[in-house]
Order: sequence, then C-alpha cells, then structure tokens
Amino acid sequence: MDANMMNMPLTITSIMRHAQQVFGETEVISVNLDLSYNRYCYRDCFKRAGQLALALVQCGLKQGDRVATLAWNDYHHLEAYYAISCAGAVCHTINPRLHLEQVNQIIADAQDKFLIISGDLYAALGSRLLSNASFEKVIVYEIDANRLSDESVEYEAFIATGKEQDFRWPELDENQAAGLCYTSGTTGNPKGALYSHRSTVLHSYAMSLPDALNISSQDRIMPIVPMFHVNAWGIPYAAPMTGCSMVLPGRYMGDGKVLAKLIDELKVTLAAGVPTAWNNLMDQFEETMDGIKRLSSLKMAAIGGAAAPEKLVQDIEACGPEVRVAWGMTETSPLGCVNVGSDARELSSKVKAGRPVFGIEFRIVDDQGQELDWNGITPGNLEVKGNWVCSRYYKKDSDNWDNEGWFNTGDIAKIDQNAYISITDRSKDLIKSGGEWISSIDLENIAASHPDVREAAVIAIPDEKWDERPALYLVPQSDREINTKGILDFYEGKVAKWWVPDQVIIIDELPHTATGKVDKKALRKINKA
Amino acid sequence: MDANMMNMPLTITSIMRHAQQVFGETEVISVNLDLSYNRYCYRDCFKRAGQLALALVQCGLKQGDRVATLAWNDYHHLEAYYAISCAGAVCHTINPRLHLEQVNQIIADAQDKFLIISGDLYAALGSRLLSNASFEKVIVYEIDANRLSDESVEYEAFIATGKEQDFRWPELDENQAAGLCYTSGTTGNPKGALYSHRSTVLHSYAMSLPDALNISSQDRIMPIVPMFHVNAWGIPYAAPMTGCSMVLPGRYMGDGKVLAKLIDELKVTLAAGVPTAWNNLMDQFEETMDGIKRLSSLKMAAIGGAAAPEKLVQDIEACGPEVRVAWGMTETSPLGCVNVGSDARELSSKVKAGRPVFGIEFRIVDDQGQELDWNGITPGNLEVKGNWVCSRYYKKDSDNWDNEGWFNTGDIAKIDQNAYISITDRSKDLIKSGGEWISSIDLENIAASHPDVREAAVIAIPDEKWDERPALYLVPQSDREINTKGILDFYEGKVAKWWVPDQVIIIDELPHTATGKVDKKALRKINKA
Repeated sequence: MDANMMNMPLTITSIMRHAQQVFGETEVISVNLDLSYNRYCYRDCFKRAGQLALALVQCGLKQGDRVATLAWNDYHHLEAYYAISCAGAVCHTINPRLHLEQVNQIIADAQDKFLIISGDLYAALGSRLLSNASFEKVIVYEIDANRLSDESVEYEAFIATGKEQDFRWPELDENQAAGLCYTSGTTGNPKGALYSHRSTVLHSYAMSLPDALNISSQDRIMPIVPMFHVNAWGIPYAAPMTGCSMVLPGRYMGDGKVLAKLIDELKVTLAAGVPTAWNNLMDQFEETMDGIKRLSSLKMAAIGGAAAPEKLVQDIEACGPEVRVAWGMTETSPLGCVNVGSDARELSSKVKAGRPVFGIEFRIVDDQGQELDWNGITPGNLEVKGNWVCSRYYKKDSDNWDNEGWFNTGDIAKIDQNAYISITDRSKDLIKSGGEWISSIDLENIAASHPDVREAAVIAIPDEKWDERPALYLVPQSDREINTKGILDFYEGKVAKWWVPDQVIIIDELPHTATGKVDKKALRKINKA
Repeated sequence: MDANMMNMPLTITSIMRHAQQVFGETEVISVNLDLSYNRYCYRDCFKRAGQLALALVQCGLKQGDRVATLAWNDYHHLEAYYAISCAGAVCHTINPRLHLEQVNQIIADAQDKFLIISGDLYAALGSRLLSNASFEKVIVYEIDANRLSDESVEYEAFIATGKEQDFRWPELDENQAAGLCYTSGTTGNPKGALYSHRSTVLHSYAMSLPDALNISSQDRIMPIVPMFHVNAWGIPYAAPMTGCSMVLPGRYMGDGKVLAKLIDELKVTLAAGVPTAWNNLMDQFEETMDGIKRLSSLKMAAIGGAAAPEKLVQDIEACGPEVRVAWGMTETSPLGCVNVGSDARELSSKVKAGRPVFGIEFRIVDDQGQELDWNGITPGNLEVKGNWVCSRYYKKDSDNWDNEGWFNTGDIAKIDQNAYISITDRSKDLIKSGGEWISSIDLENIAASHPDVREAAVIAIPDEKWDERPALYLVPQSDREINTKGILDFYEGKVAKWWVPDQVIIIDELPHTATGKVDKKALRKINKA
C-alpha cells in the first residue's frame, strides 16, 4: 500500500531554491587571482547561475549534455555547478593537474559540448585542448577578452546574454545525471563516476550531520579540497543546504600562507583537506610561531583522501580544532565514514577511518567473497553499497561490482565490533612477504610519527627468498636530517621484526598524483630505475 | 540521462540495519510501570523487533495491513514501531487520551488487524475496545497473563513464538506506507496521515541536522512528546539513525518529578516537548530550588506543538540548556521549521517558529491564494510542500490542498526576509474586530509573560458593535493571585489599544486537547455557558 505523502524530487535545484529563500543573505567569499576577495551572497550567486544557465540554453544546451569545467575553488565554478546541473545537464569537472593527454582523453570520452575554464588554465592549456575538442563554445573567466581566440567568449559577456529574463529552471527527475567526475587513478585509464541529483542531495544531508562535518548556518566552511575533484567532497552542495557561509580559496589551495590568512581574517570555522593540504597549512604555523592564535576560529579540521598521519592529527589538535578523519573515494561521492569521538581517545584510534554514516553500508570479504567478522583483527576487502555509491562507471564495464551489487573499494580494512573501520592498505599496495601480508600504511604511519620525518611511503620490492619485502621512502622535515638506523630502531616493539623495512631511501620529495596522494606507481618506477 | 548511482530504497529497515551494525551497543533506557528501568541496547531492541515481526507474520500479518498500538513511550512500543513497519505493514499509533468514541471510530476507519497495547490501558479500555474491533489478536505488555481475556496474548509469550529463526526482513519500496497517525484535531473528525518509509527517512535526516535537533552519537535524547502522536516527532527514527542513546519515560511523560530525575540520573543531553510538558518539568525545579544543577547535562530543550511563551523560554535558558522553538504538525511528520540562533537575540525573536529546514518549503498566501511578500509585516495563510508533507488524508478527501499541491496549514503567519516565520494565529482562532484582525497568540504571549500568570488563552466572543472582541482566560501561577487591572495595564504600549481584551476570566485550569494544546473549542463552550 502506497503512503499518502508528497513526492518531491530530491534535486540540486531544491538545494538552490532553499538557499535563495532561507539563506539568501549568507556570504560566499571567493579569492580572486590577484588575492582580492569577491564577496557576495547565495542570492547573488544563484541569480548569476540562472543567467549562465539561460545563456547556455540559448546556445543550444540540452538536458543530458555534458559541460566541462577546468576551474579552481571560486565563485565562477560554484555558479557553473548550479547552472549546469539545475538546467538538467551534467557538470563535468576536470582535474587540471592531470596530464594533457588524460585531459583530452576524458573530454573525448565525455563528449563535452561546452567548456567553462579559468583564464590562467586557458592561457596554459587552451590551444592544446581546443584542437581536438567537441566544444561548441568555450567560456573563459578572469581573462582579458583580447587574449581570447575565436571559439571563446568571456564569462561576464556570456552571462550578460542571459540577463533579459529570469531563467525558468526545469522540473527534473531525481535520478537524472547531475555531475561527472573521472577518477584519476594510479592504475589504468580514468573512469567516470556519474552522480545523480538524488545521490547529491542525500550525500549533502549525511555530510552535514553532527557526526559528519557538522555543518550549520552558524558556520563558515572552507573546502581545501578541489571543486574539480569529487565536488570538493560535496561541500558546495551541503553549505547552501544548511545555510553555511563558504570561503573559496581560488587557485591558492596549495598555499599554506594564503589559507592561514583566510582562516584568520574570515573567521573560518570548518575546513576539509587531504593530509598534504593540512601539512602545507601547518608548515605556515611553524614558520610564524603563532599557530594557536591563527587557528582560533577553526572548530574542526576534516582530513581525508589518504591516511592521516598521527603526528599531523596531533599538531592540528594542539592548535585548537577537533580533527575528524574521514574516508571516501570518487565512487562514493565521497563520504563513507567519519571518525568522531571524545578527545580523550588514543591517537591511534583517532586516525582510523571512522564509522559509517547513515546511507552507506560496509562489509569486508575474503578473496572468495565470503563475508568476514567485525572483530577488529581480521582484514578483508572493503566493499560498500549505498545511495551515493556508483553502480557502474560511465560508459565502461568493470569487475569492481559483484553479483549482489557490492562495490569493491580496493582497500583492505579491519572493522571492529563498534563498526570502526581501519584501512590497512590499498589491495594493490599490500606487501606479501613469506606468504604473509605486511601493511604499508602501518609502516608509513610509524615512520611519519618520527619527529624528523615529514612524509613516508612504503612499497614492495621483489625479493628472491621472501617474494616481496618493504622499502621505505622518507622525506625529512625542513631543517632536519634523518638517521636511517634511528628510524629502523624506531620500529622496535611497534611491529613484528620481519615487518621492518629492508631499505630506507631518503628523498627530497615524494611523487604525488593529481589529487594529492602519494603516487606509488611512480615510486615503483623510481625504485626500479 | 540517468546517472550511474545505486538506488537503495530509503526505508526504516535501513535505519534499523545501520543501528544494529554501527550502534549495536548504544543504550535505550525505558521506564517501567513500577519506575524501574529496562536498559538494553539497539542490538537487543531490533532482535526482539524481529521476533515480534515473525510472530505477527506467523499469525497472518500481510504487507499493507494496519497494526494498532495503544502504548506509552517505552521499549515495547519502540519494538512495535520497527517490527510492524519493517515487516511492510503500517504502524497505526493511537492516542489513548482521545474519547473512547473517537478511538473506536479511528480503529474502524483504519481496519486494524492487530492491536499492541500496554497493560494499564488494556485494563482501562480493553473490553470496550474489543467489543467492536477488527482485531484478529490483541497483544498486551506489562500485564499479568491471568488478567487477559481470550482474544488476547501476553507480549513476551507472543514474541517467544517468533524466536525459532532470524526474521528475514522483506525488501520494501520506499513509497510504501509505514505509519498512520490520526490528527485528533479540535474541529471535525480525526483524519489520518499515512507516512511512507521515504518520508520517515528524509525527515530523520532533517531532524538530526545541527540546525534542527542536532542529534549525534555523543547524545542521549528523551522524547517528552508521545510516541502515540506523530511518532514522538520522529525521534524514535532519528536516534537509531545517528546512534543517539534514548531515554523513554514510559507512562510518566506528564510527571515533572520523574522527568527531572531521568535527566539527572541518566545524563540526558537533548529533550523535546510541548510547552505544557516543559511547564511541568520547570515546576519541579521551582519546588526543589536546584534547577541549575538538575538540568546540567541537558544541552538543548526543543519546544513545539504550540506557541512557546517567552517566560518559559527564559526560565529554561536560566537553567542552562539552549532552547529551540520548532513548528510542525501531524501532516508534516512534524518538522517544518526550527528557531536556532545566537543567545544574544531578543526573547521575542527566539519564540518565533524559526526557519524552514531543508526538505520543506513554505509560502504565505492571501484568501484568494495570491502569494504574499516575506516582509515580516504582512500575515497570510501558511502553506507547505515537501517530502514529509501529506498529499492527502487517508481514505478522505479534503480541501486543505490547492491545485498546485500546497497544503494549507490553517496557521496564519508572517515571514521576514531572512525566512523567520512567526505564527500569529490559527486561522480559526483569529479575532475579527471592527473589520480588522487581532492575533490571539500575541495577546496570550503578553499575558503569559506576566509573573503572576501560568497559562493564558484568548478566544473571540461575539460583539454587536465590533462583530468580535477578545476574551482572556488566565491560570495563575501557584501561590500567586492575578490582579485583573494589573494584567490589562500590562498590555499598555505592547499592543494597539483596541486589541486589549474586553473580558478577563481567571480559572484554575484550561481545557487541553489530547495532544496537550489548549482546547479553544471547549473554551468557547465554557464561555457560552
């Protein structure tokens, strides 16, 4: 028997409408190329989104069309998010840090009809992108119009053509595609995650819960995670939904100095980033020696995208904010679990991936697909199901999904009886030594907790006797030197003797992927060379 | 173009599964008839719900069947909520404070197949209910089995028949009916609101948000709102979803002394109730003179169901907790808006109904259905739309919905440009005097803020010259006397002169409806007599 309830589609349009009506005067502050601020409110933002949508529709945009963006965390990108998705088209965010070849491949796969691009990226990539592309029009912001080629139009001039009337947003189905993001992946070709309006709205509810990012109308959030990758963890949707003010650091997301200034000047209360981003920020505080003062407005620091080193968590909490470690991936929109709890807990439990948020389900299975117990001891392949988990890749078959629809994350994890998940490795990074597994993440965490170590990475190296053995790559803290023997001694009593790495290699910098994770594929190449 | 996301139905079963897996050890503490506690955790609760479901199915329960409950806020009722809805049937909660005639009428309308009832209500109502009813079986808890008649079975004995295997919960459609609640209404016959799994899940997300009831796994919540009415504001769903511990005060919801002891002993952090419930609780603190100590664990007090008097808000906040005024109704599941904000705001703005939560939309219209501005000045008929708003009444046509699907709440409200809604009256309680409107709620709030006044109600009385004039009914504070002239002088400067009531009547107690609101229909009868 069906209930008698209204059935309103869960759409990004409904988030926009809510913010316009209820939080119309809440501010979005965006950092321009010249480091000045663009300050406006949600009402202005969505009015301009309507102008952009109308201009696109007048140029032939149809529902289901893909529109690419190559853009930073700024207000133009935010306007594009809403204009494209709420017009019924697909907002295809592209990571500008990918190799040009990959960018071109992604654009060809998505068959993007329009491109919205920042002036600096246009100057750097423009001609090489446009040579191949399916774009009917390229819209460029923050650029001198004289520098545009024929197919291109300046953003402000373009949206001015959409000004003559209020855009009438179409009614959308909640399962309609709204966003497209390719995982840059350390293996194989990029694969597209095609998000729906429904998945985005449900993900925003979950993201905002007190035990997730705890986002409210009393807060100001700064995504230090890029809007070109997994929608900056969905913050650009969760913030307007909850009436949270936003600070968008523009193209300065990697600049700890700018980020520290933004937190300080604009009284940011919540921020989210990968460990590298937080490291950059913390470096800044070490330099200025006034970390505590500078982070005073910050209530919470969310860390995700890669394992959070204990030392980093400790350093941030020493400056005031509560640290919440989160786990997610492109295929999960990304939020899977969050680690929230009392400050009294041990550091080692604070760096676990946390507990699942409502709306996503986890299990661990062995290599035969048999479900394993949640005993905190047995590791298994981590699999997920949920409303904001991909059911397949865009236009591509994959064996990452089993017959029951579970998605294999590629992570190896243990889950304890209170549902705390701890990631022990990426399955492809596990080290098999003498028939037994060694966790590269455990070894990395221990090394990273040494005061002389800034960053650590462990890879497997072939070994005649043991099949594989661990090799440890280390980046020293600035002004510190690493004593190899000291590091190896440091492992004593922390892991089994046979886990201790066979090689320690000290380098100036680790290779990172375009999304800020250590690129182990590149590291293996370096090791072989 | 459809997205590539998993589409998992939003069901109450998924809330149960999440709580079992992630918050299995979180406690539910329920007050027994003899004032002892039943303490167990979500894992136990849902195991027993499975046993109850299996026992019901073995007795012939089919999907879509209605199962009535006449029960208090206790663990049996919680088990029944999940057993019934997750088995695909409809949990029909009945308000035991209704007239027997209305209870029988509701049961006849719903055609309930089973009844789950507490021992005390069975003793009081049993035979008179069973004479008419459609019940195939009556399940009675907290009762001596010797006192049962033939059609009845004791709850523990009944669920023991469901013990032989784990119940296999069925896959459900998210739009399937899950719950049924009749509005007791001060006018006309009770009308049924038939909630869906989807509406319940979405409502739970919204309820738990930081700017709503801010429910987390770090909290313990006590619903002082009845589980027999609008699902205790959805707390029995939101708490397991978020891993919040629950305290269920059993049949002692009206006993301020017990409630105060529960908050104190069990470290309750969140509680929600109608003004009358909070008044009862605050009385207790006045008596013991240690209010501040007793409310120390309580972080937040939610008040809804009727206009919150300024004095009550002030008194509670003086004891520590933040007060959040909320607005809702049976037809809106109930959450519509919540008043959250800085403590520095004026009291008069804290008692407004608040701002809409994401998922529900508001507008005000004039009597011709024309939309009115949100200027904070113009009052209009308050209308709503949203995923947890009824689209019609159960088996009953009504003109409460317009052609575009908006539901007319029957409230008169002003909305300001920041979307703060203030309810000025129920449309049927408005006083039309000399062709102009007088707000009964404004007059009541002013009277209730007088130190000698405990409760105030205003009704219209017929007047030859002005058509209608306001009459003010007052209940004095214990140990206080009310000076009529003093009260009338108290209005000076607070309202227009012609708003000041023509009559002041002092009585010992105001008539209340079964859900704790002032019964103005009864008051009008008293006035005529």
